[in-house]
Amino acid sequence: MIDSSGISEPTLLLDVEKCRANLERMATKAKENNVILRPHCKTHQSHGIARWFRDFEIDRITVSSVKMAHYFANDAWRDITIAFPLNIREIKAIDELASQIDLKLIVENPESVAALASTLNHHLQVFIKADIGYGRTGIADPASPLIEQILQEIDRSSKISFLGFLGHAGHSYKCRSHQEIQVVHENSISRIQAFRSRYRDQFPDLTISVGDTPTCSVMNQFSEIDEIRPGNFVFYDLTQWQISSCRLGDIAVAIACPVVARHESRNELVIYGGGVHLSKDRLQMPDGRTIFGLVGTWRNSEWQIRPEASYLRSLSQEHGIIVANEELMQSVRVGDLLPIVPVHSCMAANSMKKFLTVNGEAINMMS
Amino acid sequence: MIDSSGISEPTLLLDVEKCRANLERMATKAKENNVILRPHCKTHQSHGIARWFRDFEIDRITVSSVKMAHYFANDAWRDITIAFPLNIREIKAIDELASQIDLKLIVENPESVAALASTLNHHLQVFIKADIGYGRTGIADPASPLIEQILQEIDRSSKISFLGFLGHAGHSYKCRSHQEIQVVHENSISRIQAFRSRYRDQFPDLTISVGDTPTCSVMNQFSEIDEIRPGNFVFYDLTQWQISSCRLGDIAVAIACPVVARHESRNELVIYGGGVHLSKDRLQMPDGRTIFGLVGTWRNSEWQIRPEASYLRSLSQEHGIIVANEELMQSVRVGDLLPIVPVHSCMAANSMKKFLTVNGEAINMMS
Repeated sequence: MIDSSGISEPTLLLDVEKCRANLERMATKAKENNVILRPHCKTHQSHGIARWFRDFEIDRITVSSVKMAHYFANDAWRDITIAFPLNIREIKAIDELASQIDLKLIVENPESVAALASTLNHHLQVFIKADIGYGRTGIADPASPLIEQILQEIDRSSKISFLGFLGHAGHSYKCRSHQEIQVVHENSISRIQAFRSRYRDQFPDLTISVGDTPTCSVMNQFSEIDEIRPGNFVFYDLTQWQISSCRLGDIAVAIACPVVARHESRNELVIYGGGVHLSKDRLQMPDGRTIFGLVGTWRNSEWQIRPEASYLRSLSQEHGIIVANEELMQSVRVGDLLPIVPVHSCMAANSMKKFLTVNGEAINMMS
Repeated sequence: MIDSSGISEPTLLLDVEKCRANLERMATKAKENNVILRPHCKTHQSHGIARWFRDFEIDRITVSSVKMAHYFANDAWRDITIAFPLNIREIKAIDELASQIDLKLIVENPESVAALASTLNHHLQVFIKADIGYGRTGIADPASPLIEQILQEIDRSSKISFLGFLGHAGHSYKCRSHQEIQVVHENSISRIQAFRSRYRDQFPDLTISVGDTPTCSVMNQFSEIDEIRPGNFVFYDLTQWQISSCRLGDIAVAIACPVVARHESRNELVIYGGGVHLSKDRLQMPDGRTIFGLVGTWRNSEWQIRPEASYLRSLSQEHGIIVANEELMQSVRVGDLLPIVPVHSCMAANSMKKFLTVNGEAINMMS
C-alpha cells in the first residue's frame, strides 16, 4: 500500500488491478472476435505496463513516434506500428529501427514513399492511411488516384511492402452514448471495407486495421476487421466516461495532489497540481461547466469517484482550483492529499513521466 | 545559424536577440522606477537563460516550485522566492534550501506557518499572500483576522521572519487593451497598498511585491511598489499579444514542426507537433476561432508572424492540424519545417524541455 506520508508533490497513481482488468476485457474481446489486438502505447509510454500485455499473449504494439518505437524496441518488442504519418525527416532513425524489428509505418502521399524508398536500407511494411470519417489525416476515397501513385512508389522499392489500410475513427470522441458510438463504428467499418473491396483482388492478404478506444470498448462485433489498436482503454479517463466508453470505476489513474489553501467563503480549495501535471485538457459537462478533473475520495490508498464530485474549475502552471462541495470543504485540511481523476489520462501521464502504483511500486515511463 | 536539415522532430527555437531585448526593456523600466526586478523563472526553467539576467544586475529570482528553487540554487542563485503557497508536505526540502540560500516563501494561512515553524531548522522569510483582485489565492481583506494569526505564528518562531505582502494580478490576463490593463494595475496597486498602510506602523520596512507580465509590460509607473516579478515577458506569446502586452515581433520562441501531410481539398496541413509539444492551451480569437498557435514564415533561420497568418485549429497528442491560407498551401511541401508561434510559451517550453537558439546553440532546461 502507498505510504502517503511520503508523497510531497503531485504524484500519478496507478490502480494496477483496474488497469489489468481493462486490459483483460479488451484482450478477451479481441480473442472472441479473432482479431489482433495491437494496443497503442502512447497512453502509458512505459516498459513496465507494456510487459503486462505479454500476459495476454500480445506481442505487437502501436506507438505514435519514432522515438517511442525505439524505446519499446529496446525492451524486446519486435513488431511495432508507428501510427503517425511518415515524417520524412526521420528516415535515418526509421531505417535503423527497420534493421532491428518488424516495422510498420503509415503513409498517405506518394512523395513521402518516394523519399523513403530513396534512402532505406532495411525492409519495412506500410499501411496506407484511410480517412474513415474523422477528417484529420488519410485518404477518404478508395478510388483516389493517390492510392495508385503510392502503390507504384512502393512497387519500385525492394525494401517496402504494402500491408493494407489503416484507419482511426477519432470522431468517436464526439459521441456521448453507446448508440452514437455504434453509428460511428458501423460507418467507419463500412468505409474501410470499401478500401478492402477495391483492392482485394490485387492484394488478397491485405490487412485492415482500425480501433479507437470508444468503439473498441463499447462494440462487440469486429468480425470483418483484422486488427484493433485502442490505447487509452488501459487507463480510461473522464473524457472516455463522458463518451460512455467506460464507467468512472474503470478509470485506473489519478493524480494525488497536496492541498495548499482553503477558501471557505467561496467553497474553493487550492492544490499543488496544475497544467504541468494534468495538462490543459478540459471537458465540457452537460450542465455547461468546463472542468479540468474530478476530485475523488480515498478508500485506503485507492480512490472512488462520483459524477457529482467536486471538480477542478481552473489550472495555472502549478495551481489547481477546486470547487468543493460542502462535504469536501468541511473535511479537508491544508496538507491533505486529494486524488484528481484526469480529463485525459494520456496527456496527464505524458506530463508526469512516472507512475506510483497503489501498492507502492514505482513504474517509469519514456523520458 | 540553425542547420534546419538537422531538425527532424518538433524543436523549440529561441530568438536570443528578441529575448534579451525583452529582458533589457524590463530591466530598464525597473531601474527607472527604482523597483527590484525579481523575474519569474517558471517560463524558461533554464540555467542558461537565467544567467543572462545577471548581465542586467539581476541577482534575485522567483520560481514556482521547491524543485525549481533547488535547480536554480544549484546554479549559484542565492536569493529565491517560491511564489506558490507553502506546501507543508515539502518542509524537509524547504529546510534544506533554507540552509543554502536566502529563501522566501508565501503563506496564506496560520496552520501552514505553524507546521513550518514546528520543523524548520534554518532561517527563511515569508510573504503573506494578498489577493489583489485575481481571486485565486491569498487574503483579500487587509483587516482579516487571518493576518494577525499568521503574524502570531511567525512571531513564535525564531526561524521565520515576516517580509511583507505579495500579490499577483492574474486577472490582467483577461484584459484586451492598454486601457483595461491600466484599470487592473491601478486597482491592484491600490489594493496591495491597503495592506501596507494597515501594517506600516508595525513593520516600517515591509516589502510589497507584485507584477504580472501584462501590467509590467504596459504600465510605466511602479513608484509605490518595492518589487516586480514578471516571468512570461522573456518570451511573450500569442496570449500576451492578445492581451496587448507585446507585439507579435517581440515573441522570442517558436516550435519548428515538420509537415507530414497536405490536404489541399480542405486547405489543411498536418504537422508533427501536438499537445505533448505545444500544450493544449488555446486562444479565442476576436472572430470566434479557437486557435492553438499561429504559423510563421521563415526569414533565414528566424521567423516572422502576421495576425492574419495560417493557424493551428486542433491538436492531438502528436498531430497538429493547420488551416492554411492559399499562399502557405501552395508553397509548402511534405518534409518542410513550419515555425509555430505558441499560445502559451511557459507551457510549451515546459513540454519541450530544451531550446535551440536561432544561432544553433542548445540550451537545456530543468528536467
